[in-house]
Amino acid sequence: MPEEIRTVAIVGCGVIGMSWATLCLSRGLKVTVSDPAKGAKEALERYLDQARPFLEAQGNFEELATNYEFVSDIVPRLAEADFVQERQDFKRELMKTLDEWARPGVVIASSSSGLPSSAFIQQCKRDPSRILIGHPFNPPHLIPLVEVVPHAGTSEEYISIAMRFYQSLGKRPIRVRHEVPGFVSNRLQAAINNEAYSLISRGVVSAEDLDFAVTQGPGLRWALTGPIATNALGGGGGPGGFVRRIERLGPSIRAWEDDMLKHRFDWSDERLSSLQDSVEEWLGATDWTNLVEDRDSILVQLLAAKSNTTSMRTHSP
Amino acid sequence: MPEEIRTVAIVGCGVIGMSWATLCLSRGLKVTVSDPAKGAKEALERYLDQARPFLEAQGNFEELATNYEFVSDIVPRLAEADFVQERQDFKRELMKTLDEWARPGVVIASSSSGLPSSAFIQQCKRDPSRILIGHPFNPPHLIPLVEVVPHAGTSEEYISIAMRFYQSLGKRPIRVRHEVPGFVSNRLQAAINNEAYSLISRGVVSAEDLDFAVTQGPGLRWALTGPIATNALGGGGGPGGFVRRIERLGPSIRAWEDDMLKHRFDWSDERLSSLQDSVEEWLGATDWTNLVEDRDSILVQLLAAKSNTTSMRTHSP
Repeated sequence: MPEEIRTVAIVGCGVIGMSWATLCLSRGLKVTVSDPAKGAKEALERYLDQARPFLEAQGNFEELATNYEFVSDIVPRLAEADFVQERQDFKRELMKTLDEWARPGVVIASSSSGLPSSAFIQQCKRDPSRILIGHPFNPPHLIPLVEVVPHAGTSEEYISIAMRFYQSLGKRPIRVRHEVPGFVSNRLQAAINNEAYSLISRGVVSAEDLDFAVTQGPGLRWALTGPIATNALGGGGGPGGFVRRIERLGPSIRAWEDDMLKHRFDWSDERLSSLQDSVEEWLGATDWTNLVEDRDSILVQLLAAKSNTTSMRTHSP
Repeated sequence: MPEEIRTVAIVGCGVIGMSWATLCLSRGLKVTVSDPAKGAKEALERYLDQARPFLEAQGNFEELATNYEFVSDIVPRLAEADFVQERQDFKRELMKTLDEWARPGVVIASSSSGLPSSAFIQQCKRDPSRILIGHPFNPPHLIPLVEVVPHAGTSEEYISIAMRFYQSLGKRPIRVRHEVPGFVSNRLQAAINNEAYSLISRGVVSAEDLDFAVTQGPGLRWALTGPIATNALGGGGGPGGFVRRIERLGPSIRAWEDDMLKHRFDWSDERLSSLQDSVEEWLGATDWTNLVEDRDSILVQLLAAKSNTTSMRTHSP
């Protein structure tokens, strides 16, 4: 088991891989990157260039941003890696190779957003107990969440190494205790999206008003207090607040849920088309360049404001 | 129809009513308040006192904070009101009275969070077409969202007066086109909460990690971009981004949804108890005073940052 993680292998360097590479470099780690796609090396160079302000905030840009090697074949370089983060297709073959060549004790984490690791470890003969999911969120250099999802045979020790490594990168890993389709956050998003699609396609609310119903309402709270703490605050705070809310509102909520189930978005062509009409009207009027810039700039301020509190800090300083 | 709204009657002065009163006073409106509960008048005085910084930011505290009358009976004062905002129980009788005594053309809005207005207009003989729901969110002096929900007989003109009035208070009203149980935002919250309760009670994730899965992940985005715009950004932006995302991820999402439905939180004693055990462990360790202070202070910064953008402003300046 490596005493300290100093060199990270990034296998597959699309948007997610480039973001992992940038994050690792920003913390002074040495990175070895590979990607079979044409132009991947140049894309990473451009990405690092654009991330200059982010890297400059962490140290000397020239030093940090050049502390990597882009290689055509990762295999001969796996022996140097203290942690492997992959994001590539055709995972079974790849996993077999990574497991064969990575040093004993080195975690192999997949950024897969949907596929659980049990789906691609069948051919790993050496040590599949070090393989797990480390699933980041878009935009990954700003959103702290990483879902750590073990398969049934992943060892506690490796889970713990991965959790600590992501924390050291400034991420907030959560521990998903066993594999479920979509893991945790994508399921929560699917839940809200299904009801959103349902309400819009039924003509209850426009796509524009639906978005504002979140960004000017519960979404503001969810950036600060999660569903459980928000429930408890609604009941007056504390674990007692959660119970009070459940007891007082439970019957109403169950009635809403029954109605939601009855009108569940069924992905039929008719409802999809009604949904897309309203979405087009709303999103067609949006200035996307401004939106992304504003979002990223406010995200940075928001995360900084939260880190300055004791009640909302993501992890120990 | 009143040319301008200058005097607002607040009928029922609990947490929601006090917050409406404070907001109206902050905009220089005259307020007439009534509440049958013992100590309600003193509670409002204390509330206004605590809201001093908020009112001072808008103008002269002494002038704004005293521009109201607390009356034991609202009826003789209804003729002065240009807008009526109610939040009380036993709504049928009350609505009948409000409709009888409010001037023609004055909107009567209920802050009801669950009951649609069709449930309490049966005895209104004068003009039920001016009755609608104006449903705010906690904490209501900070969260801009108001859901405007007409019943089948509410007139477009009154809906429009209510929307413009809430906008003039700095709120972001959304138009819910017809009555559905729970309206819009409570349904979206119920959707995410049901899946959250399900995952926690099944032991997939702890209540603590579930909350962080939102506050360090999608919740950060939902404060800035709603579910629809977030989907579109995930597909590369624009209305085309939404379609691309639906086409690419649709089959995965439907598989997650099927699995979620299969494991839906059923409110059984067994699952409730497993949920509450994990919630207690998480919330028992929380410092609630700090949390509420931090939340409110960051909410104010966050809303200010959003208002300073063109892409996320809630309404025209």
